[in-house]
Amino acid sequence: MAQVVADRRDVDFVLHEQLKVEQLSKHELFEDFNKKTIDLVVSEARNLAIKELLTCQKEADEQGCNFKSGTVTVPEVFHKVYALFREGEWIAMCDDPDWGGQGMPSVVALAANNYFNGANFPFMLHNILNHGAGKLVERFGTEKQKALFLKNMYTGIWGGSMLLTEPEAGSDVGALTTKAVKNGDGTYAITGNKIFISSGENDLVENIIHPVLARIEGAPEGTAGISLFLVPKIRVNDDSTLGEFNDVVCTGIEEKMGIHGSPTCSMALGGKGQCIGTLLGKENKGMSAMFVMMNEARLHVGMQGFSCASASYMNAVNYARTRVQGKHLQATDRNAPPVPIIQHPDIRRMLLTMKSYSEGMRSILFYIGLLEDKVKLSEDDSDRTRYQGLIDVLIPVAKGYVTDRAFEMCSHGVQVFGGYGFTKEYLQEQLLRDCKITQIYEGTNGIQAMDLLGRKLGLNKGKAFNDLLDEIRKIIDTAKGIGNLKSFALTLDKTVDKLEEVAQNIGKTAKSETIMTAFANATPFLDVTGDTIMAWMLLWRAVLATEKLDGNPKKKDIEFYEGQLKSAQFFMNTVLPVSRGKMDMILSNDSAVIDISEAAFGGK
Amino acid sequence: MAQVVADRRDVDFVLHEQLKVEQLSKHELFEDFNKKTIDLVVSEARNLAIKELLTCQKEADEQGCNFKSGTVTVPEVFHKVYALFREGEWIAMCDDPDWGGQGMPSVVALAANNYFNGANFPFMLHNILNHGAGKLVERFGTEKQKALFLKNMYTGIWGGSMLLTEPEAGSDVGALTTKAVKNGDGTYAITGNKIFISSGENDLVENIIHPVLARIEGAPEGTAGISLFLVPKIRVNDDSTLGEFNDVVCTGIEEKMGIHGSPTCSMALGGKGQCIGTLLGKENKGMSAMFVMMNEARLHVGMQGFSCASASYMNAVNYARTRVQGKHLQATDRNAPPVPIIQHPDIRRMLLTMKSYSEGMRSILFYIGLLEDKVKLSEDDSDRTRYQGLIDVLIPVAKGYVTDRAFEMCSHGVQVFGGYGFTKEYLQEQLLRDCKITQIYEGTNGIQAMDLLGRKLGLNKGKAFNDLLDEIRKIIDTAKGIGNLKSFALTLDKTVDKLEEVAQNIGKTAKSETIMTAFANATPFLDVTGDTIMAWMLLWRAVLATEKLDGNPKKKDIEFYEGQLKSAQFFMNTVLPVSRGKMDMILSNDSAVIDISEAAFGGK
Repeated sequence: MAQVVADRRDVDFVLHEQLKVEQLSKHELFEDFNKKTIDLVVSEARNLAIKELLTCQKEADEQGCNFKSGTVTVPEVFHKVYALFREGEWIAMCDDPDWGGQGMPSVVALAANNYFNGANFPFMLHNILNHGAGKLVERFGTEKQKALFLKNMYTGIWGGSMLLTEPEAGSDVGALTTKAVKNGDGTYAITGNKIFISSGENDLVENIIHPVLARIEGAPEGTAGISLFLVPKIRVNDDSTLGEFNDVVCTGIEEKMGIHGSPTCSMALGGKGQCIGTLLGKENKGMSAMFVMMNEARLHVGMQGFSCASASYMNAVNYARTRVQGKHLQATDRNAPPVPIIQHPDIRRMLLTMKSYSEGMRSILFYIGLLEDKVKLSEDDSDRTRYQGLIDVLIPVAKGYVTDRAFEMCSHGVQVFGGYGFTKEYLQEQLLRDCKITQIYEGTNGIQAMDLLGRKLGLNKGKAFNDLLDEIRKIIDTAKGIGNLKSFALTLDKTVDKLEEVAQNIGKTAKSETIMTAFANATPFLDVTGDTIMAWMLLWRAVLATEKLDGNPKKKDIEFYEGQLKSAQFFMNTVLPVSRGKMDMILSNDSAVIDISEAAFGGK
Repeated sequence: MAQVVADRRDVDFVLHEQLKVEQLSKHELFEDFNKKTIDLVVSEARNLAIKELLTCQKEADEQGCNFKSGTVTVPEVFHKVYALFREGEWIAMCDDPDWGGQGMPSVVALAANNYFNGANFPFMLHNILNHGAGKLVERFGTEKQKALFLKNMYTGIWGGSMLLTEPEAGSDVGALTTKAVKNGDGTYAITGNKIFISSGENDLVENIIHPVLARIEGAPEGTAGISLFLVPKIRVNDDSTLGEFNDVVCTGIEEKMGIHGSPTCSMALGGKGQCIGTLLGKENKGMSAMFVMMNEARLHVGMQGFSCASASYMNAVNYARTRVQGKHLQATDRNAPPVPIIQHPDIRRMLLTMKSYSEGMRSILFYIGLLEDKVKLSEDDSDRTRYQGLIDVLIPVAKGYVTDRAFEMCSHGVQVFGGYGFTKEYLQEQLLRDCKITQIYEGTNGIQAMDLLGRKLGLNKGKAFNDLLDEIRKIIDTAKGIGNLKSFALTLDKTVDKLEEVAQNIGKTAKSETIMTAFANATPFLDVTGDTIMAWMLLWRAVLATEKLDGNPKKKDIEFYEGQLKSAQFFMNTVLPVSRGKMDMILSNDSAVIDISEAAFGGK
């Protein structure tokens, strides 16, 4: 049977051959996760994803969510799937078993999430929000808050959300106006309005625990005066029983382009003056709490976008093998029979584009997961700083670059299906629509690009970015010594040198009077950084494939490894020349984007 | 008030300053179309588009089309708009007044269509199909066919469609199986099933005239045996009254990603053996009749895609001027107020990208329209051949390149709106969804790329492509003599030289044993050809803007012309370096796309 959602051979390749994740089980923390267990986890996740999540993807999209006088119903079929998801304990895969987690390595959870998100990412949003809210409680909650909420959240009895955005505070979080006033008993009275709240209200769970960003009366303006509160939909008594309704009202849900299974709620807090919250963490430290969660959340969004692309690629390649249309281009006989479209050059170009990006994305996302695990395991401060620095530099790529490319891949995925791709008969169009949001939320990709240029490039005095280049060069050095990879290695070598030059140049410009010009190139800089990272991952894969091919692999493995070499070849010779063109462009520091007057944009 | 749909100043610039279309009125055929009349036509179209088509764009998208036992209802509001459209005689703008046309130059009709399509392209599909079908009747019909059908079609009393695609015959038209059997009276009995038929059935009109591609019993296989028939939904008596139902049944409509206002019908012909058609044109010449219509149809699709981008840009720039979010990047005061997002570099990058492409696209599409008019007016065969050759070379760019870029522009247009862009509160998400189909139908963009490489590059022994390069070089030569444009001119000069080298190289490869590799680069070749053409159009605009700025323009015009210089600067210095990188890539003739085995694509 054809693979769907994600190519299991490739998932296993990254886990075991590229990243050798079973080595984590040498450490006490992950001792239960030997290769066998990891494979079992992936198989279970894959099973659940394909049998349950995938089969209701279209149905849920068509049914969508419904809003009626304050209540929100999710697609009916989600109730069954959610029960299975809870039963399998998939919500808190990497978290402390004491609180209902599974204690899994992050990298393994990412493999599971590749399947879950590729099969039904609108459904997964419920779980991700729930988990993220729980993580904030675990990280910043008092013992009492943890005891009251956490286990119920991690096991999915209760849900979670994140109340951040307001109509006038989107990318600019510091502009938020939701207010918190101290009550006599140490709690806070919360009033305000939030928008774009995924899972803010839904009928999957009996209670929803909302982390809420708000400003305590008298707090400083901007981000420095923002605190984080825990606001349950229904109050929770000290004995853990449910109390009264907490005046958190959903006032409507958005009609959207995609992710129809995920309700995007407008929320009114304290409309009747009855909304009570407790401080989560310290006063005015809400933003730093958010930043702690940011990497996880952004990595997750990257995984959502990538998983759409991964699923779209599987669908496209399977379709191209069976859809017969048109003669072979080299057929000499007028009456030559039509062939499967996978034999047509332009279809092959799209497929190999999708394949190579999918592989590069999978590798980099799983790699970041492994870095997270290594941070947890590090006993040495300098190791930990190094791993964390790599994560920090890579996050804007994992979120911004990956989702930008993922959207393009999903568009190719529609294109391979021709007219059928535009219809709802196939999943391709939904994957494209759903994928679009990943470029927007959790910080638009423009924000990601600013993050890379403005914060990450100079992180630890530039050491984090240099560590990244060092890692890339290690693989290049290895590949230089392998006959058939030498030219790829030299191509990437040239590209990395140029990226370094670009980074130094744009880094300086960003600190100069022409800072605006530098930031006009923030997105192109993210693009070329991402391209280089993709090429690194593909070269790494090619090194391993070459080694394996020198052994005595099985026929099916030969095909797979040869496919790795082709992905690398394609990327080095087809994508990188374009990237270097873009690097030339960045180096030229053209200022048209900044110099053009507002009036000259026209439209008035 | 802000401009919507299209920037009138820019529309006028292309019509009057760049293309000087009023010169057409020197010829008898277009003597009625002096500048004043042209402006009036554009103003009327703009009015109707903005007041009527645009205001029901969302409503129609949400309502969509409905299918019930063979009948199809379009969005209710379309009935009113259609009546207005007919009343204004907008269906057959360029056609013979004797048949109900307006006799307008093509280039002027394109300006009107920019507004109509940008305001509501799903609605426009009804009219376009109607007109296209009518054009086939005008071009290939007998006097009787014309007398019976044409005026009613051109005036919108009856509708039209085009029955081409079948489930197993999409890109491969030659595979179609719909059958025509000669009746005794010279008519044909038609049987077969068609899919993806826009406006195949609808309740806007009392009768629909279907051109149908079918194979006469005993005809050769493949495209050489395809004939074109005229098949009315309701038979038309010789006295022009309506007769009996003609056994053309709509069996369902597609659920789609976009263009919800346009029904995409499955059609069964002759299910009861009662479907009668008359031959349109000659036996077995159906494909060549289709090819005659192809340029017009593909130019139209380019206009649809571009118009989505044009509208998306107008919305984005207007939104960016009013949406306040975040401090200015150079603000030194912690408490500096937030600014309109048009002041943020990454937003400006997206806006200037959208602006420059929109302008380049508008210019090239209108330019092709003018060439069509010149073909009509040519008294000299060599002139006519030259104009027609330019049209033929430019059509894959107008359809394939323009819609590919338009889809990207619409995606930027969502991005500028942030989270709001993903909601149905604004038009951005619909423009993106609707635009997607333009990359697929009327020949997928992969087919367009093959057309450029396989047919157009070698057209007239390569003269047509060379004529194009000559036209580009004329503008470069002019620009070289203008101080502030010299560097732009040199940049484009270098790029055109490289494009020529690429064209020669890929043209040769396409005729060699490695033809497959050449065609794997067909789309990149279309991309770089399109980029060069955009740059040509923008340099041309910059030449005119410089001349005007040297005069004594009004303040508002100064802004506009300076905006032209910025578009050109941006494109030369920001887009073309990347294009040249892509040209390097094509020149390397990498064969990974072709060499990879089917198995190595994975997914099995």
